[in-house]
Amino acid sequence: MKLATLRTDGTTRAVRLDGDVLIDLGDSDLGVFLARPDWYERAQAAVPGTTYPVAGADFAPVVPRPSKVVCVGLNYRNHITEMGRDLPEHPTLFAKFGDSLIGAGDDIVRPEETAQFDWEVELAVVIGKQVRRATPHMAVEAIAGFTALNDITCRDWQFRTREWLQGKAWDSSTPVGPYLVTPDELPGGVRPALDVRLEVDGEVMQSDTTGDLLFDPVALVEYVSTIVRLHPGDIIATGTPGGVGHARKPSRFLLGGETVVAEVEGIGRLHNRVVKEDSAP
Amino acid sequence: MKLATLRTDGTTRAVRLDGDVLIDLGDSDLGVFLARPDWYERAQAAVPGTTYPVAGADFAPVVPRPSKVVCVGLNYRNHITEMGRDLPEHPTLFAKFGDSLIGAGDDIVRPEETAQFDWEVELAVVIGKQVRRATPHMAVEAIAGFTALNDITCRDWQFRTREWLQGKAWDSSTPVGPYLVTPDELPGGVRPALDVRLEVDGEVMQSDTTGDLLFDPVALVEYVSTIVRLHPGDIIATGTPGGVGHARKPSRFLLGGETVVAEVEGIGRLHNRVVKEDSAP
Repeated sequence: MKLATLRTDGTTRAVRLDGDVLIDLGDSDLGVFLARPDWYERAQAAVPGTTYPVAGADFAPVVPRPSKVVCVGLNYRNHITEMGRDLPEHPTLFAKFGDSLIGAGDDIVRPEETAQFDWEVELAVVIGKQVRRATPHMAVEAIAGFTALNDITCRDWQFRTREWLQGKAWDSSTPVGPYLVTPDELPGGVRPALDVRLEVDGEVMQSDTTGDLLFDPVALVEYVSTIVRLHPGDIIATGTPGGVGHARKPSRFLLGGETVVAEVEGIGRLHNRVVKEDSAP
Repeated sequence: MKLATLRTDGTTRAVRLDGDVLIDLGDSDLGVFLARPDWYERAQAAVPGTTYPVAGADFAPVVPRPSKVVCVGLNYRNHITEMGRDLPEHPTLFAKFGDSLIGAGDDIVRPEETAQFDWEVELAVVIGKQVRRATPHMAVEAIAGFTALNDITCRDWQFRTREWLQGKAWDSSTPVGPYLVTPDELPGGVRPALDVRLEVDGEVMQSDTTGDLLFDPVALVEYVSTIVRLHPGDIIATGTPGGVGHARKPSRFLLGGETVVAEVEGIGRLHNRVVKEDSAP
């Protein structure tokens, strides 16, 4: 199944994709819907009552107000190796805030305060069940599905101090969506092997497969839930492959005016225009 | 005024301290109450209708579900200088999650997974008004008041990778409260000069004054709100002075069974027993 949060009539609705329409699931967003213990069965059983056309759909962040967004640092083997680093023993974790998230087609507003505005396409896990200290089996059960996330980063702010948060948590900077896709629809299930790819104005900047992840989604749910309980709607971004602007020779950054497309195979595309602060709507 | 969130009858209530009673403010917690544009006038005007005795009061986290908890790294001049470091140009920021917070008298559960469980007494700012890119004047207006926070840290997890989050965000580990005290009650107002002090089983481990903060509360609200909007109830922990267990010679950590008292002058005391995981209620 493909689920999403749709903006319509000045509000949002949880929906399921069905051919060329989106079926209303009766809740205000996917975070609310995933908090229902029987969300999977409800989504499966939903029949077209109130529907919305997919064409021209305006997607909100797939979960608009998660209680936490946990991000993973270096996690693609190829990229770690090519950078001459040893494979780490533990995942590197940092946070974003719910206020950092935007929808799959929203403008990315480039803050005036940065000169190094960069991209990072990622596969993201969405939690479907509260879990703490997950065993592998519990972790599998707790994964509602997967979505795409573009971890837009102000590199100059990321490296101002020894903690990354201030480069990563800018308001309304992180597209996430368009769909949550349940594991049964993906090759590899809860450990999906999917192509990830990012283009800036049609030029491929990142291209890899999530099969190369050092810490896979199940391992990440185990690790993060050891530290803190995870709730339905919480998001874990699994890290980005090589090809970010900061690491290119010469480096490349987003200045405003570009179109950035971040795509995860089988999930969908984040298609966002980069706009300067003052030209934002 | 001193405001708090009280646990009573299996639920929580926003309250104002009035002599030896707590006056019910009509909302379920202080986060909900602070979201009212006229919260200050309402709290001032509140008359004893429903009241609760202060004696034996069971305090919830002062704001139980903030949308964000932003923490500041090294921020006491004395401590930075004594460590032989240069004063930093920018504050170092990291996050905690709402699920990390506990009440002023709750047990701190020591996770089995850590061998280096440490303390950090801090003055914390509570936001009372939505703000983004605050000017100094806007920052002053956005500060609802101050509270005390003990930034309990798993040092071994903090230093596992190059990001601190996984040492800082453990579930139900961070006491915060008991009161939010409005700036008009504090010497120094929105830049209060208050003694901060932490004791383990009666032995003083940390003792300093918030007048020594390199980045004061107003500067921190300006800085953080440049990056991301702040909402009523959001918390900024301003950093800890010297004397943490990790930096002592020899190092000292919490093993379970200790009583930790973290106090900020004029605000109140966090008085918490450290319990081992399996002996938790």
